[in-house]
Amino acid sequence: MLRSCAKRLRALGSLRGPLPCEPRPALRSFSSKKVVYKDFSIPNPSWSKDIRLLFDEFMKKCEDGSWKRFPSYRELTKEDLRTQTRLFTSSFEEGLGFEHVIFCNDVEKRTVCLFQGGPYLEGMPGFLHGGAIATIIDTTLGVSAAIAGGTVMTANLNINFKRPIPLCSVVVINTQLDKVEGRKFFVSGNVQSADEKTLYSEATSLFIKLDPDKSLT
Amino acid sequence: MLRSCAKRLRALGSLRGPLPCEPRPALRSFSSKKVVYKDFSIPNPSWSKDIRLLFDEFMKKCEDGSWKRFPSYRELTKEDLRTQTRLFTSSFEEGLGFEHVIFCNDVEKRTVCLFQGGPYLEGMPGFLHGGAIATIIDTTLGVSAAIAGGTVMTANLNINFKRPIPLCSVVVINTQLDKVEGRKFFVSGNVQSADEKTLYSEATSLFIKLDPDKSLT
Repeated sequence: MLRSCAKRLRALGSLRGPLPCEPRPALRSFSSKKVVYKDFSIPNPSWSKDIRLLFDEFMKKCEDGSWKRFPSYRELTKEDLRTQTRLFTSSFEEGLGFEHVIFCNDVEKRTVCLFQGGPYLEGMPGFLHGGAIATIIDTTLGVSAAIAGGTVMTANLNINFKRPIPLCSVVVINTQLDKVEGRKFFVSGNVQSADEKTLYSEATSLFIKLDPDKSLT
Repeated sequence: MLRSCAKRLRALGSLRGPLPCEPRPALRSFSSKKVVYKDFSIPNPSWSKDIRLLFDEFMKKCEDGSWKRFPSYRELTKEDLRTQTRLFTSSFEEGLGFEHVIFCNDVEKRTVCLFQGGPYLEGMPGFLHGGAIATIIDTTLGVSAAIAGGTVMTANLNINFKRPIPLCSVVVINTQLDKVEGRKFFVSGNVQSADEKTLYSEATSLFIKLDPDKSLT
């Protein structure tokens, strides 16, 4: 199983392909064989007023080029092996899961994720599952590391959960690249309420830059 | 938002209700107002031979009462506010997400999760998302803590990801309760391949026992 997956991965050339967070061409499907990518990191009807306001605020910051918005795709392809797979954070139908958008500032080495965790991410009744919080933190930290290091993999993730996050509320994940040592990228961050008055979680992490010539397994 | 959620939580009596991992009555729906629970932690057609073999092995261990299987529910109710929510680890359709079953041994203070991560949990192409791994680790560690402490919440989760886990492969999460200090429950564990030859991840955690008389927010 391990070998066949590694072989498939090499066959797909995925380690040399664009990062999940990098812009890809948004092709329209004129034939069933063409790839169709839908960008999930733009407002949809499930987005609350809170996340829309923050989205507009960051889109304004993008106007002078200091901040950039990252698109988010689900890996939707037709007539291809990968039709069956979905990027975890884009795997739910609209409004049910990880509604989010990521912005980054290259100069400040900061990455910000606006996140509205939907009703399918429940842990304790009424609150987000710790794993869902870990997922969106890992994703945001990973973008910070990937901007600096290219294709990276999480090696360590250490999260302090200080308060539970109410389901369907909007939170902001702020991350920053702290240090680079060879292939090691140290990134930290936190999760706050939209009004920045409540600190929900804090995290540190270590990402390792991958060598595309080596098998992952 | 925080207050209303806390109020709703108290209204539902959730903190005094059964833990997500505790057996609940499996009511059949004779009227549309009755609660319907489906147990997701039993084999379904998406389960591979690997996870079925391990399932059978642990079910045999349950025969003398030394091990117990935990059922897993999605919080499916009808004509109720919570119709909209789903427990994160049971939120995907059959075979796409967190196919898993948890067994525990009270005497040894050990908990084991058999896990087959489906195609909607993808991170790097062909492999599980770090957040999906964190989710199933958090869930298994949480059951260990909950067996000892009742209603608990994750306070810290620290994971070392040593190797990426191929999508759709079967892994085993072993956790154990290491120490209890008042309301603090320290639990550690690891993720291995089904044949125990590959160590994928290691984790430590701290869970806090909740006081049901206090608001979570």
